[in-house]
Amino acid sequence: MTYQALNDRTVVAYVRACPAMERVFSQDAPLSAKEVGDGNLNLVFIVTNGANPRQSAVVKQALPYLRVAGESWPLTRERMRFETQALLLYNELTPGLAPEVYAHDDEMSLVIMEYLGEHEIMRKVLVGRKPLPNFVGHISTFMARMLFFTSDLYLTGVEKKALQAKYINPHLCKIQEDFVYSNPFMESPENKWNPLVDAEVQAVRANRGLKVAIAEVKESYMAHAQALIHSDLHTGSIMVNENDTRVIDPEFAFYGPMGFDVGAVLENLVLNYLTHYAHTLDPEQRVEYQAYVLDMVRGVWTEFARKFEALWIENNKGELPPAQYWDFTGGQEAFAEFRHRYISGILRDTAGHGGCKMLRRIMGIVSVWDITSIEDLEKRALVERLAIRIGSRWIMARNEIDSVEDLIDIVVEETKGVNV
Amino acid sequence: MTYQALNDRTVVAYVRACPAMERVFSQDAPLSAKEVGDGNLNLVFIVTNGANPRQSAVVKQALPYLRVAGESWPLTRERMRFETQALLLYNELTPGLAPEVYAHDDEMSLVIMEYLGEHEIMRKVLVGRKPLPNFVGHISTFMARMLFFTSDLYLTGVEKKALQAKYINPHLCKIQEDFVYSNPFMESPENKWNPLVDAEVQAVRANRGLKVAIAEVKESYMAHAQALIHSDLHTGSIMVNENDTRVIDPEFAFYGPMGFDVGAVLENLVLNYLTHYAHTLDPEQRVEYQAYVLDMVRGVWTEFARKFEALWIENNKGELPPAQYWDFTGGQEAFAEFRHRYISGILRDTAGHGGCKMLRRIMGIVSVWDITSIEDLEKRALVERLAIRIGSRWIMARNEIDSVEDLIDIVVEETKGVNV
Repeated sequence: MTYQALNDRTVVAYVRACPAMERVFSQDAPLSAKEVGDGNLNLVFIVTNGANPRQSAVVKQALPYLRVAGESWPLTRERMRFETQALLLYNELTPGLAPEVYAHDDEMSLVIMEYLGEHEIMRKVLVGRKPLPNFVGHISTFMARMLFFTSDLYLTGVEKKALQAKYINPHLCKIQEDFVYSNPFMESPENKWNPLVDAEVQAVRANRGLKVAIAEVKESYMAHAQALIHSDLHTGSIMVNENDTRVIDPEFAFYGPMGFDVGAVLENLVLNYLTHYAHTLDPEQRVEYQAYVLDMVRGVWTEFARKFEALWIENNKGELPPAQYWDFTGGQEAFAEFRHRYISGILRDTAGHGGCKMLRRIMGIVSVWDITSIEDLEKRALVERLAIRIGSRWIMARNEIDSVEDLIDIVVEETKGVNV
Repeated sequence: MTYQALNDRTVVAYVRACPAMERVFSQDAPLSAKEVGDGNLNLVFIVTNGANPRQSAVVKQALPYLRVAGESWPLTRERMRFETQALLLYNELTPGLAPEVYAHDDEMSLVIMEYLGEHEIMRKVLVGRKPLPNFVGHISTFMARMLFFTSDLYLTGVEKKALQAKYINPHLCKIQEDFVYSNPFMESPENKWNPLVDAEVQAVRANRGLKVAIAEVKESYMAHAQALIHSDLHTGSIMVNENDTRVIDPEFAFYGPMGFDVGAVLENLVLNYLTHYAHTLDPEQRVEYQAYVLDMVRGVWTEFARKFEALWIENNKGELPPAQYWDFTGGQEAFAEFRHRYISGILRDTAGHGGCKMLRRIMGIVSVWDITSIEDLEKRALVERLAIRIGSRWIMARNEIDSVEDLIDIVVEETKGVNV
């Protein structure tokens, strides 16, 4: 079907005509649709059977334009191909941890997938101090499986490069190159920051050592083609409820450093931790939930590392290196050392990328709802100053980080004695 | 033109019919052709004007098969596309340092280029102890320009990824992944080594620390997409004479670590240095030429680093990072620090990749003519033992290397008191 933007009526006709949807909607069901996207980037329709609202689906369609920061970005509808490909791969490698894809149509730049009506965006859940007893287990499984099974540790060189070629994603990468690693740290018209932290923001922009370090972390983003990363795995790209976890919106997916994804999760948890100085006025409640969030940081890394290594031991058939490379006396100890050094490298990248992303949320184009929902600028500044200090220390310490406790210690040290 | 393998007669007809060749050959010139390739991988014809032998050209055509190590490799004729693309880019970025391309035909998997009748393969020249007064200048310019202008330091992210997508080269990469980083270091039927160094070869294969280090260097080859590297830049891929230097055979070209190319040049110079213990019996001549070769090692790195940095300062418009990122008090010092750390990283990679390649020439599928031309196995073993020690130390020391003198010191220390 030639591309045309759908509307509330045409989307229903489209879904009716789609054979793959017969397993979702009863025949002749009275379908209706509602557009719920912001209309600037993608159209998002919820299509429902009026006679049985449990039968529903989401249709997401790329519009042929995208406006960011007042500029026209050269973003074509091709981004939907990256999102669809990645979601299909998630369905295969991590079933139940991403929305199920029912159908897709590359010419129409659309994907039809499971409607997550019983899930919330994770940020809101964390700000609301709800428990998420399965999150650590789910997200660590998601990351361990996605990153391991798309890496040189599992694939042959030829298989990896074939997959990599499908995910050369220059325009979406450019957004992260600009807005994570460059623009926040220099004069750029779209940057926004709380005037109360102006001194701290300017200090970051003029900090020689930090600027060199951030440039080095950017190099890793641009040139370290380690695995198929989600590349936007913040807590706004994760839908949760008490039982369930779903990763959404992988249009940025490309071959990059694993630590970028892990760093995104940990950094967003730390930002959320900090915002409870504003969101949670009762000290007991605050201390308790902050400890809970910090335990998630510890748990996500620990479980990720454990599962990643277990997958590697069980499925050691990749190019890097072939299993028989370790066939010698002491070879299994050497293989273990290689694994541990490799996983330490992911943790160091996690610190670097996580730190950069923490800073950019304070001084770049777009913050996070956890912070922007703090209306009192003084309280917000307290959170932001802490984020700047912690993010900066994660970046500067990245090459000496040996354990997730080193990352947590920095959070604990910087928040010791915070008085609200 | 539909693919067909050419022969001495059809190649002449092909060249005659090629409009681009009118500027090389006079009209109605009596052309003749001679096949000079080994016929197993590519056809290589020299086409000459019998009436004016200065008018000549090389036609190189890929055959649709390649046998390596007794196995059938899934190498399609597509490799000629990589070679042609790279040669055209060299003509643009480093004119005079690669054969000039006159014409190419992707369907026929062929390229027509300058005949280098007055050049020799560099290995032979080095074994013959001839001076190459322009080599350091030429090869350092070639590498500095090719690597800088295809990197994130010069290109935008979008431009770099567009170029990278043209050079996803899985099958040729696989050859290096196997034969440089894996197979030489484990049991593999194609490995060949001098029985007199069997103990040393087995010791490398069972050296835990070294095996871990080689796996890490392989990771850099597979995942560090830093620049368009030649990826086979040994002294058999360089044609020279006293005035001139030409880089040939870039069919392995892909986005990889810069240190792989620099390491190939330095490592081949060091291997040649060592072989003079066998090739050059007169001690005075030997000491003199060895000093000359070691000066080339120093010169190639020093000039490469100097030119690379100068290009960067003059052309600082890449994505990594944008020039205005350094617009702050002290920013120029920070930019200098980033440059120096980046170039140090290339030197460390040079040590790692150069060391691996040195070892593989002693214990893998294919050695180098500098060594195989030593008939006396005892003398050859002396050279090979030194190469194993030096290569191993380059690899193990790679993360502490600060200057090319560190690499040279290892060569000098290991060869101190060698008695032949």
